[in-house]
Amino acid sequence: MSNAKVLPLLETGSVVPCCPPLTERLFTAEEAERAARMFKALGDPVRLRLFSAVASHPGDEVCVCDISDVGVSQPTVSHHLKKLREAGLLTSERRGTWVYYRVEPSVLAAMSRLLTNASAVA
Amino acid sequence: MSNAKVLPLLETGSVVPCCPPLTERLFTAEEAERAARMFKALGDPVRLRLFSAVASHPGDEVCVCDISDVGVSQPTVSHHLKKLREAGLLTSERRGTWVYYRVEPSVLAAMSRLLTNASAVA
Repeated sequence: MSNAKVLPLLETGSVVPCCPPLTERLFTAEEAERAARMFKALGDPVRLRLFSAVASHPGDEVCVCDISDVGVSQPTVSHHLKKLREAGLLTSERRGTWVYYRVEPSVLAAMSRLLTNASAVA
Repeated sequence: MSNAKVLPLLETGSVVPCCPPLTERLFTAEEAERAARMFKALGDPVRLRLFSAVASHPGDEVCVCDISDVGVSQPTVSHHLKKLREAGLLTSERRGTWVYYRVEPSVLAAMSRLLTNASAVA
């Protein structure tokens, strides 16, 4: 339980999702807390657009300096990217003046699994 | 575009999702607005637990009167289920005294598709 607090949806370094599909059983309060954090981060239109900008960028990585087409100021871009990072959806690395962001693919996979229709698969 | 406003994520009655996978390209402001509404609805721990309660219930349908194990009062349960319905994640039907909720499976599929890693598939 203790290391589950380090990363909200995944155990360290591996693709072990925190939670079963939402269709499988009632979530525990702790599972709901962790999964809700990720959904909440994507629950803002500007953040969702920014996430799509990073996730769809060739090379899977994008410099903050290259994001200018979402209609918000650079400080707002930085603010929202930080929120996405804090929610565990993006990772970042500072190189020189700029911060570079990338999507953690295993987090996408874990979120997608949450939304799998277990009864349709079974 | 006009009928797209009726339902937030799906065209009427069919499984035509509003948006491509988040990894495919930058979302338009309108796509982001629609998809963010669904994520936001799941971005609350109590709502997420309630959603899992409905989604995992045998028979795919549950009476509000049967949801008592998420640790919140009945009015709070009703309030959150209504929010999930307004976001297009649940449908409801009143029969006699009680309201019955069910998950729309095509909405789950559409949300799951949003989180598909397009570059991994391609």
